[in-house]
Amino acid sequence: MPRQDATHFCAISQMNPVIASEFHAYPLLIGKLLVNTRLTHADSEIVSAGLARYTYGDFLERVERLAAGLARLGIRRGDTVAVMNWDCHRYLECFFAVPMMGAVLHTINIRYSPEQILYTINHAEDDAILVHEDFVPLLDEISAGIVRPTRRVLIQDGPSPPEALPDGYDIEYESLLKSGDEGYAFEDFDESTIATTFYTSGTTGSPKGVFYSHRQLVLHTLGALSALSSIEHEVRLHRGDVYMPMTPLFHAHGWGMPYVATLLGLKQVYARRYDPSRLIACIVGEGATFSHCVPTILHMMLSAPEAASADLSSLKVLIGGSAMPYGLAHMAVEMGVQVFTAYGLSETCPFLTFADIRRPGPAGAGEPEIRSRLKTGKPVPLAEVRVVDEHMNDLPAGERHTGEVVVRAPWLTPGYTDNRDGSEALWQGGYLHTGDIGYLDESGSLQITDRLKDVIKSGGEWISSIALESIISRHEGIDEVAVIGIPDPRWGERPMAIAVRNDPSVDEQCIRSRVAAEVDLGKLPKWAIPDRVVFVESIDKTSVGKLDKKRLRTRYSADSE
Amino acid sequence: MPRQDATHFCAISQMNPVIASEFHAYPLLIGKLLVNTRLTHADSEIVSAGLARYTYGDFLERVERLAAGLARLGIRRGDTVAVMNWDCHRYLECFFAVPMMGAVLHTINIRYSPEQILYTINHAEDDAILVHEDFVPLLDEISAGIVRPTRRVLIQDGPSPPEALPDGYDIEYESLLKSGDEGYAFEDFDESTIATTFYTSGTTGSPKGVFYSHRQLVLHTLGALSALSSIEHEVRLHRGDVYMPMTPLFHAHGWGMPYVATLLGLKQVYARRYDPSRLIACIVGEGATFSHCVPTILHMMLSAPEAASADLSSLKVLIGGSAMPYGLAHMAVEMGVQVFTAYGLSETCPFLTFADIRRPGPAGAGEPEIRSRLKTGKPVPLAEVRVVDEHMNDLPAGERHTGEVVVRAPWLTPGYTDNRDGSEALWQGGYLHTGDIGYLDESGSLQITDRLKDVIKSGGEWISSIALESIISRHEGIDEVAVIGIPDPRWGERPMAIAVRNDPSVDEQCIRSRVAAEVDLGKLPKWAIPDRVVFVESIDKTSVGKLDKKRLRTRYSADSE
Repeated sequence: MPRQDATHFCAISQMNPVIASEFHAYPLLIGKLLVNTRLTHADSEIVSAGLARYTYGDFLERVERLAAGLARLGIRRGDTVAVMNWDCHRYLECFFAVPMMGAVLHTINIRYSPEQILYTINHAEDDAILVHEDFVPLLDEISAGIVRPTRRVLIQDGPSPPEALPDGYDIEYESLLKSGDEGYAFEDFDESTIATTFYTSGTTGSPKGVFYSHRQLVLHTLGALSALSSIEHEVRLHRGDVYMPMTPLFHAHGWGMPYVATLLGLKQVYARRYDPSRLIACIVGEGATFSHCVPTILHMMLSAPEAASADLSSLKVLIGGSAMPYGLAHMAVEMGVQVFTAYGLSETCPFLTFADIRRPGPAGAGEPEIRSRLKTGKPVPLAEVRVVDEHMNDLPAGERHTGEVVVRAPWLTPGYTDNRDGSEALWQGGYLHTGDIGYLDESGSLQITDRLKDVIKSGGEWISSIALESIISRHEGIDEVAVIGIPDPRWGERPMAIAVRNDPSVDEQCIRSRVAAEVDLGKLPKWAIPDRVVFVESIDKTSVGKLDKKRLRTRYSADSE
Repeated sequence: MPRQDATHFCAISQMNPVIASEFHAYPLLIGKLLVNTRLTHADSEIVSAGLARYTYGDFLERVERLAAGLARLGIRRGDTVAVMNWDCHRYLECFFAVPMMGAVLHTINIRYSPEQILYTINHAEDDAILVHEDFVPLLDEISAGIVRPTRRVLIQDGPSPPEALPDGYDIEYESLLKSGDEGYAFEDFDESTIATTFYTSGTTGSPKGVFYSHRQLVLHTLGALSALSSIEHEVRLHRGDVYMPMTPLFHAHGWGMPYVATLLGLKQVYARRYDPSRLIACIVGEGATFSHCVPTILHMMLSAPEAASADLSSLKVLIGGSAMPYGLAHMAVEMGVQVFTAYGLSETCPFLTFADIRRPGPAGAGEPEIRSRLKTGKPVPLAEVRVVDEHMNDLPAGERHTGEVVVRAPWLTPGYTDNRDGSEALWQGGYLHTGDIGYLDESGSLQITDRLKDVIKSGGEWISSIALESIISRHEGIDEVAVIGIPDPRWGERPMAIAVRNDPSVDEQCIRSRVAAEVDLGKLPKWAIPDRVVFVESIDKTSVGKLDKKRLRTRYSADSE
């Protein structure tokens, strides 16, 4: 690849700036996150619970071997290498080796349906797939539909090499690494080379492919690190932390945090499966102090029987993916777990904003302090956040001025793979449209109130489905609730609640009264009271555990016709 | 300027990544540090002690007016705008407005001799100079020697407009801002545009001009922020800090920290003059919590009579420029001041390494904890630090393996203005040569032992002048000491000490015995004992307050001939 130095400096001034012929222009490449790893953190540990434990020194060697092995398998710069795996040290190796050799890492969403997985494999034009043994049957099932020839590497937990390789597999992962014993000479290349791709399911149509360059991922790493470590409150991330993700690595690069943790040289712990007892065992056994997940996972973990007797008081948990209920935050703080929130999308790498919590006052915790943890928050350094009306005019601050959140940052997907219309809509007006509705408060903190697609448009007014869910979920007889808009010939849409109750005496009228009480307090307009409440055994979820309002709308809209 | 989006992504993969036509490629420009300032920190304060106090909201408006005023004065993209000023809010305005309009900010070293200042004005080809009234006589003195026509703007502390402008001045600063009331529409441009330049005096020859692009300064800001805020120990920088520099802004952009502080939206305090009583008054009166300076300034401040009665226990001070003596660190910690060190050069923007202090143990402070504050330290994220022999081979870890420190980082000067030979030497072998001698310890922490030019080469062995100075300075009868190499026909060079004593009974023999005691302990080779010790009233310093060993060598080498 051409060196950048000749054109790197734009010297339009009269002064004569000399660019030394051997000046290193320093492209922002993922490999640069490792420039000092051997020097400063060779002995830090990376742990895959029950599977492996090694040092960063070993990790660096294995990243080299993996790249060399993939090269022997025929993978070249620009090829796409997909991974179907549980979170573990091997996944982390792929996070580095694949982009560092100039290939594109495709992190397959293992919670997708087989049809969706097949769609993404074909759409991303995968040249190789690294498959954990647990997903071999799934891949076999869709194999006939894969259009391109793909190399297949078996990842397994047992001894290497395995007795036999499944049909269609070229080699097993550890054997691949052994085959790469000549190492790999990583070279610098253009920082705008695509490093990663993954898919996000929107509310309509097929999954959409987003993609990120090396430059974007390095800048995201620095931006996220700057944001999370500069927080005044003790929730902040620091160099003494032990990192353990509870967000799958296929989900927006595990929110980009494995890159941050590796840059800092933190001890890293991968739980592999996110079931509560295993997570608690890892936290206690490995001393994990910094984690991140969606509210559902945190709730599962804190409600597990093991949580009652475990000391979780060294744990800090960053919450994203959806809004954290106050009750959950209160429960966490009561148990000594430091929780706080951040906001971002698959399209934004993901970090956009974070709850910039101040140091607690001498009185310690309390409701305002807990509420400060729930804020969608302030922009990560360099991220520009605006709340605009439909003509892209800025709206004033204050919760009465909700509009769409549009953003710029150095780490946003430039578009969707092979989807011109979606890409143009995403970037209309030169800002990325998040599809979220929110407002900015007087302190410059963003508060998301709803998804643009989930907000209920009733009689020309907007009703936040999330605000209604929050009110209804505080009823002690309700375990879970979703609120959606149902087509209405007179009002356009009307709110409907779908709830899981733990007390059969809770009925539709109880729910409506609860909402009406908030209307009486002036917190909601009276047309926010749901027309209909249904009780169900469980509510449909998406592959990443969010309420599947698209499916709910389809189901209950049909009902109402 | 051309948009970058068309070429921004390097898509060599088969997949079809769509770049939306309105995708914002996000150039790394200094103006981007302000994208959220109005939103999140409009009410934070910027204070110039005794001169001005305003909000970030006012600051943003004044930055616009300054750019508009400079444009009216004829300044265009690529022009060079120099500043001769004390540190204050107006200097901070120049830090942003000048580069944001695409011009180059030249921060003149006001401690240079008039001849050196003239040299740098001509060498940088300044198109305008903003001059504080205190420096008008100095500029008058050298005015005839200025080759290019330069616009001159008077900066003054009194009411605006002044009764009369000095000869040759176009306008006064506040009037310039008033003239810019139409504002300035800052535009995006190429991130590799040069943003700043300043001069550094080497040990030989004329001052050398270094220069930095917008991209480099933004990456330096993120790198420094990531390093300083992620420290485990409470010395770390955070969003609750109040920032007050004690390093002049002409000195490597005030170590780049004003950009960091502005990005974070911290309250900022500029003391204008760095005399001890004023500094202490600012710290106490404005609640400054984070500062940085050379050891000399800290020593002056802590030794001032006002320090004894002041509460400095909220203050954190980053020390750089030269090694911090243990005694000073101990004194600071005893007074409740949290000190720690960092390392960098004018050529490196400047941050390269920082003392990555761990959280103190339950036993609290103590000598090992204080020593951990004195380390040259670990690399700032993305900075690559090597210690090499003369053939650029890496040396093993350990204090017996000293060699030259060479570095790469995304923020190093690509060369010296109009100096091809110096530029090529600086970047020989693709790494920037710091000219410093040091070693890496087993934890990956760098320790500088001397300047390459100051190390004493005696009989084929290297003797660290700094190690000798450290030993001699611990003699209670010695206030200050410099050790230099003096040409010797037999050994090449021999060490000589130049000392300031506070006790006339301290003689040459006392000093030699003190060093000999360390030789007996095996800490130094016996040829490290100085051949000659002279006592003087004061030791020559450079313009930035360091021991002027170049001048000392010239003086005493002549003696010895």
